[in-house]
Amino acid sequence: MKLIIGNKNYSSWSLRAWLAARASGQIFEEIRIALFIEGSRERILQHSPSGKVPCVIDHGLAVWDSLAICEYLAEKSPGLWPTDPAARAVARSVSAEMHSGFTDLRQHMSMNIRKDYAGKGHTPAVDANIARIEAIWNDCRARFGSKATPGGPYLFGAFSAADAMYAPVCFRFRTYGIQPAGAAGEYLAAMLAHPLMREWETAARDESESIPAEDLYG
Amino acid sequence: MKLIIGNKNYSSWSLRAWLAARASGQIFEEIRIALFIEGSRERILQHSPSGKVPCVIDHGLAVWDSLAICEYLAEKSPGLWPTDPAARAVARSVSAEMHSGFTDLRQHMSMNIRKDYAGKGHTPAVDANIARIEAIWNDCRARFGSKATPGGPYLFGAFSAADAMYAPVCFRFRTYGIQPAGAAGEYLAAMLAHPLMREWETAARDESESIPAEDLYG
Repeated sequence: MKLIIGNKNYSSWSLRAWLAARASGQIFEEIRIALFIEGSRERILQHSPSGKVPCVIDHGLAVWDSLAICEYLAEKSPGLWPTDPAARAVARSVSAEMHSGFTDLRQHMSMNIRKDYAGKGHTPAVDANIARIEAIWNDCRARFGSKATPGGPYLFGAFSAADAMYAPVCFRFRTYGIQPAGAAGEYLAAMLAHPLMREWETAARDESESIPAEDLYG
Repeated sequence: MKLIIGNKNYSSWSLRAWLAARASGQIFEEIRIALFIEGSRERILQHSPSGKVPCVIDHGLAVWDSLAICEYLAEKSPGLWPTDPAARAVARSVSAEMHSGFTDLRQHMSMNIRKDYAGKGHTPAVDANIARIEAIWNDCRARFGSKATPGGPYLFGAFSAADAMYAPVCFRFRTYGIQPAGAAGEYLAAMLAHPLMREWETAARDESESIPAEDLYG
């Protein structure tokens, strides 16, 4: 299996799929393509029918878009979604809400792991997005955080695809200086300390701004 | 089970969930809330934690967002996704691509079943969205349309959640006068003739523009 991703510093959708892939335990080859430079789109289209990252290639079959990749991986590794049906339904609800929404946050507080933009990016609509995300985190932790299978500090106890979907928001909150109170704040801290988040962050910090496409590709 | 939806003429996300719910064979009570009027948001929030439609309430459990609702229904009625694993993976890929993308089409060619806006709404970005959608339809029909389980004129043969996700695009294509050639055009015609699409369309045409919220609610 191959996973096609973009720059680790910038590509929030890539982070989601990469976390799900790593958490699933599936063995995969990582192909990183530098975005926003000449030839980026053509390189991506060599793998991904939508022209976007992330994309999985499994024995010649292309599976694209972070959420579809999560579902594909979850069929191979069922632990990627909570095993309790109600928890799983809510995990998919909050994942889908992230997938199609929070456009103001995504626009004004784009992921940039290497930077400190504390205090920047706020608008009333962005702040409404942040409030809704904190409400989701608090609600999931209160309802499912302790009783869901194996348990743990994540949205549904053990790390799940829902955490992968909110992972870029965690990096954004740190970059833009958003510090939720209570359970949401504890969740944010747990996510930023997760070994896979640390591994991605280190790679993002090591990534050169001006790296030529050929060095990232392949 | 209850399904909370918005106006049938305008609410494209409601159409997706409604089609999936009807196609799943699940029995549900339909609660229609008029959007874009005073009190809309408060009424929706009485049911839906995200403040948006559609939302399913099943024995007190709220499941929201069209794609999460599709997955929830598919767990109860597995026929909602193609049974072939490769077809299912691609069905989820194109569904997720619709769910998070095509923002220009959605903005400039909003769903309005009662109107004829032939020729309107085009921009270069909208036309690129249309071209990509036609490519998806042609590709799905060519690769999965005939060989997928039971067979039929839809994206993966039999009607699936992927068709529900593209259903509002079909109404938009008619409203804005988009007529794809070849397999994509045949698919569009089949979708517009589907009994459930006809049923929704009739209800949309019968819906008053000025209907008071109380008459739509409940």
